[in-house]
Amino acid sequence: MELISSTKSFGGWLKRYKHESLSVKGEMTFAIYLPPQAESQSVPVLYWLSGLTCSDENFTQKAGAFRKAAELGLAIVCPDTSPRGTDYPGEHDSYDFGSAAGFYLNATVAPYSNTYHMYDYVVQELPHLVEANFPVTDKRSISGHSMGGHGALICALKNPGHYQSVSAFAPIVNPTDCPWGEKAFTGYLGEDKSTWQEWDASLLIANAKERLPLLVDQGEADNFLVEQLKPEALEAACDAAGHPLTLRRQPGYDHSYFFIASFIDEHLEHHAKALEL
Amino acid sequence: MELISSTKSFGGWLKRYKHESLSVKGEMTFAIYLPPQAESQSVPVLYWLSGLTCSDENFTQKAGAFRKAAELGLAIVCPDTSPRGTDYPGEHDSYDFGSAAGFYLNATVAPYSNTYHMYDYVVQELPHLVEANFPVTDKRSISGHSMGGHGALICALKNPGHYQSVSAFAPIVNPTDCPWGEKAFTGYLGEDKSTWQEWDASLLIANAKERLPLLVDQGEADNFLVEQLKPEALEAACDAAGHPLTLRRQPGYDHSYFFIASFIDEHLEHHAKALEL
Repeated sequence: MELISSTKSFGGWLKRYKHESLSVKGEMTFAIYLPPQAESQSVPVLYWLSGLTCSDENFTQKAGAFRKAAELGLAIVCPDTSPRGTDYPGEHDSYDFGSAAGFYLNATVAPYSNTYHMYDYVVQELPHLVEANFPVTDKRSISGHSMGGHGALICALKNPGHYQSVSAFAPIVNPTDCPWGEKAFTGYLGEDKSTWQEWDASLLIANAKERLPLLVDQGEADNFLVEQLKPEALEAACDAAGHPLTLRRQPGYDHSYFFIASFIDEHLEHHAKALEL
Repeated sequence: MELISSTKSFGGWLKRYKHESLSVKGEMTFAIYLPPQAESQSVPVLYWLSGLTCSDENFTQKAGAFRKAAELGLAIVCPDTSPRGTDYPGEHDSYDFGSAAGFYLNATVAPYSNTYHMYDYVVQELPHLVEANFPVTDKRSISGHSMGGHGALICALKNPGHYQSVSAFAPIVNPTDCPWGEKAFTGYLGEDKSTWQEWDASLLIANAKERLPLLVDQGEADNFLVEQLKPEALEAACDAAGHPLTLRRQPGYDHSYFFIASFIDEHLEHHAKALEL
């Protein structure tokens, strides 16, 4: 790991690192916020997965999360949204596929299958790295926004026992049935839609081996609500399976970080409770 | 005024507008955060002046101020940092002079004397516009960062009775005696340094007609501390004049918005007390 920057914030430290990742076979950048408590004890970690077009920096600069994280004694780790070191045909041409749009899955279609293993990176490699190098416990929670909300939900649903809690802001809950998801899954997983199902939160709910309560906030003035996000699909799946879901439709809020900032404290409290902070 | 965008945040609304300014003879953009209380009553206004390279957007996206503003019932107005509609020779060539570097003064050297009247804009025109068009009172406070901290201090010192309170983050307190200020004042005001003095907070302190207490936070790990910011000049001037100053040197903090975010709540509380919120 190589330290890129270290910035004091609310008595703790925001540090950015780059490192060689085995999962994605190249250099990755991530940020970690260590609250003041981490100077004298190990603290649990919230993993935050960002949305399309983002890097590790959007959340750290715009979510306003560190005040509450410092109060609670919670570390926050923000990975990047895709591998960055390659130049595949078309990889950098659109905002919703390729670079900055890794969708937190393991790609099976060449050339993306060589490096786009963001699922392995986020679920296994990054926690190993973080837990080996920082004063943190092995208690983890996960949250994210939009594409990263999808990521948080599938990571939790596919890994019983791995996370203490999960939440999401405006997640893509049913990617097998929306334009963003269809484009990404075709490109990363191929035309055979049977291979898509294991990466779709609404389809994973039925057979989930652990029923961690889901906290989801969704702005009602979100431009992507009807065509891309479709929280009603998650709601129906949770109803059918008896999976606990708190879906809060927030009147007037859009898809931006102003929406996230408005409710991030409540998500951090949700995770803190599960993490016994 | 033309509305550019309207975004819900912490129950209130962040609105961006553009309008034709008489002071700068061209179009200006500003942002206003209206807390939820503004739906049923008039609220006082904090003016926030940003630093070099910034626009109206840096504070709104990165300071994390709206949570506390919504709690207090305080509106926040963020102007841009310079006129934008011109293309004078060299105007856009450096980060510390010309566009995004208006220094909150009235320029007297051509061609900047035609339009760079940010002082008149911030002190007179913008409050008139805001107080005529939004549910706000005529109670005002002012704060800012770096170049904008300089701006906040001179606006308050030169206008007794106009503001209820003033504060600054890492302000340029003595621009007549630092490289940023010398470059800007030479370009906007000319070689005659006697004309510079009325725009220098540390020089205005001696004869200030109102002794509003100054709250200043300064990071001790700020890269610009020694060469550009020199808080000791303000401290000496306040000591000599008996001007009330709370200068807080914050160990480990740099010049970034992570520093501002860490202490903005305390500044908002300072202003709220003076504004009787």
